[in-house]
Amino acid sequence: MDVSHADEPLLLTPGPVTLSARVKQVMLHDYASGDERVLAELAFCRRYLVGLCNGERSHTAVPIVGSGTSGVEAAIGTFVPRNGKLLIHTNGIYGDRIVEVARRLGMPQASFRTAPFTPPTVAEFEDRLKADPAITHVMVVHCETSTGILNPIEAIADLCKRMGKGLLIDAVASFGAFMLDARALVFDAAVTSANKGLQAPPGLAWIVAKRSALEEAKGNAQSLTLDLWDQHQHMERTGMFRFTPATHLILAMGEALREHQEEGGIEGRQARYRASWRRLVDGMRQMGFRTLLDDADASPIVATFHEPEDPAYSFQALYAGMKRRGFVIFPGRLAAANTFRIACIGTVTPEDIGRALDALADTLDEMGVRIAGRAVAAD
Amino acid sequence: MDVSHADEPLLLTPGPVTLSARVKQVMLHDYASGDERVLAELAFCRRYLVGLCNGERSHTAVPIVGSGTSGVEAAIGTFVPRNGKLLIHTNGIYGDRIVEVARRLGMPQASFRTAPFTPPTVAEFEDRLKADPAITHVMVVHCETSTGILNPIEAIADLCKRMGKGLLIDAVASFGAFMLDARALVFDAAVTSANKGLQAPPGLAWIVAKRSALEEAKGNAQSLTLDLWDQHQHMERTGMFRFTPATHLILAMGEALREHQEEGGIEGRQARYRASWRRLVDGMRQMGFRTLLDDADASPIVATFHEPEDPAYSFQALYAGMKRRGFVIFPGRLAAANTFRIACIGTVTPEDIGRALDALADTLDEMGVRIAGRAVAAD
Repeated sequence: MDVSHADEPLLLTPGPVTLSARVKQVMLHDYASGDERVLAELAFCRRYLVGLCNGERSHTAVPIVGSGTSGVEAAIGTFVPRNGKLLIHTNGIYGDRIVEVARRLGMPQASFRTAPFTPPTVAEFEDRLKADPAITHVMVVHCETSTGILNPIEAIADLCKRMGKGLLIDAVASFGAFMLDARALVFDAAVTSANKGLQAPPGLAWIVAKRSALEEAKGNAQSLTLDLWDQHQHMERTGMFRFTPATHLILAMGEALREHQEEGGIEGRQARYRASWRRLVDGMRQMGFRTLLDDADASPIVATFHEPEDPAYSFQALYAGMKRRGFVIFPGRLAAANTFRIACIGTVTPEDIGRALDALADTLDEMGVRIAGRAVAAD
Repeated sequence: MDVSHADEPLLLTPGPVTLSARVKQVMLHDYASGDERVLAELAFCRRYLVGLCNGERSHTAVPIVGSGTSGVEAAIGTFVPRNGKLLIHTNGIYGDRIVEVARRLGMPQASFRTAPFTPPTVAEFEDRLKADPAITHVMVVHCETSTGILNPIEAIADLCKRMGKGLLIDAVASFGAFMLDARALVFDAAVTSANKGLQAPPGLAWIVAKRSALEEAKGNAQSLTLDLWDQHQHMERTGMFRFTPATHLILAMGEALREHQEEGGIEGRQARYRASWRRLVDGMRQMGFRTLLDDADASPIVATFHEPEDPAYSFQALYAGMKRRGFVIFPGRLAAANTFRIACIGTVTPEDIGRALDALADTLDEMGVRIAGRAVAAD
């Protein structure tokens, strides 16, 4: 394989994201599963992730080898007891995926869909919970990257607390860049990927779990490898994974979390993402593009844009032109709207976004595409 | 993190194993899930693994993000239908783990245990199959690294073919170093890790599966993330994983398989492992150590040794002394016998083993340990 990777573009996608060289370089080393360096990194990662949620007194962190979706499946399988019932909210692709995961596990469940381009209201959750007292747990996606919408997790958590329901959060896209404060917001489990906002390589999922809820979850999971109770008790006892861990990914995770810490934690990281996103959205609007969402509803890590109506436009040509110029963008995921997306997580800076905007203008010129709104914006 | 890694020892364990620098260096690059380089590497890996089994006409290969045990769980969950019954053979830790995986999945199953230090006979399998016609599938560990025993997979496969049972092989420790010839040996699925004999970083599991068996497996799996049927149909259609793949691990896997190819495939790799193992076992015997297994029953990738009876001996001290000298060895896994193990997979060469033997002699001297058999061996 050519190792020059001159064709390696900056990833303006919500994952895999571009990582720092420093994080990747620690993967150049091999350690045994139980090596003290691996154990120290695992202990640090667990402590740091719990700390990010202010969960030192109430929560713990459990890793598994797998995608974010594996983490979601592990959380559902572990926390919802056999006599429980899960209510799943969806307003996009990732919510739909949770419904599919739960359906396959064969557990009692109900799901409800709300409008994709505006956040759900607490009343919509409350109606469902009141109508079906069998529901024991609620699962919701924090940042739904298929549109970019940020669901109102604090208000939903308040409701769940008030009604005595366990809350599971799909925080895969938001963790590390948005606060989930365990002192203010009661949750049984928040699932994240190592990638996305934590900026480590993909392949590990992490679950920050309420200790008391996890202790009650013994024997729930039908899967051995995705049983978070079992993985947790083993880690508490030995400091190690139950099965061969992805040692290279663990080392990289530790390094990525030190980088996160040095950037100023959630606050510092979100500030950079937000600055990049602001520049992206403003720049695109100046070019005449319209965003799918109102800024107030959007998470500042990804923006969805309506495609130009000019017949000279095609996403394939835009994608190819951008990639030639060193940037990877990605298509919309909505049957309802012709959109494309640009994300600004990973090592991306506002300066990178500036260069990406130039590349986009350049590509559109090359394609001969005119944006309908452009004249208005330029006036 | 200190990147000098002066304390990075050679891993004489059956996983994680020491990898080549070349394989790790490709992890320094970030690609999107659907990048053509990632897709090309995935296609190459799938083709190469099928080719290793001479399975071009009959088999396909499916990856998942996870440990080898995740691969085992995926294979059981996917291939054994809800009205099927799985017979599991065990003569060690890894067989026991399969029993636990299947028990948790709640499927009809039977298991049987044979003596740990000798291979099972085909008659032992035949008796169980005849006694319980409800059995539809058999699962067996090829190389049981908890002892080092190599189970007689060809004869078991012949029996399964004759009796019309599906065969699932836990080939996690053996794949890449031992032949599983799909033209001679009928199997529904062989599960391997990317690590071990394939010498890629841990975190991906691969299943080489009989196409016809996989096609019949639609709807069997209760897990979405571990459903090999679903993962396979998606890959055939799009070339991609269903969920965010571990892109860095995929690139490393491709590079590791090119390395495997350049070493002469299974034959070349096994020749090196065998030469290392021969040197290890002969050298240890010269020092007075006794192996747990007869050479004829042992897989030439790991050797289990009885511990010295000298009260000055402790595994902890031997481990620490070896690690200080740059080698990681590992303890026995058998309650029945005081043993320790030394493996010779990964990048390990016979010359490395020569150095490890010197380090071991040195460490024992330092500990003041005398081996009972030594005088005999030296005479």
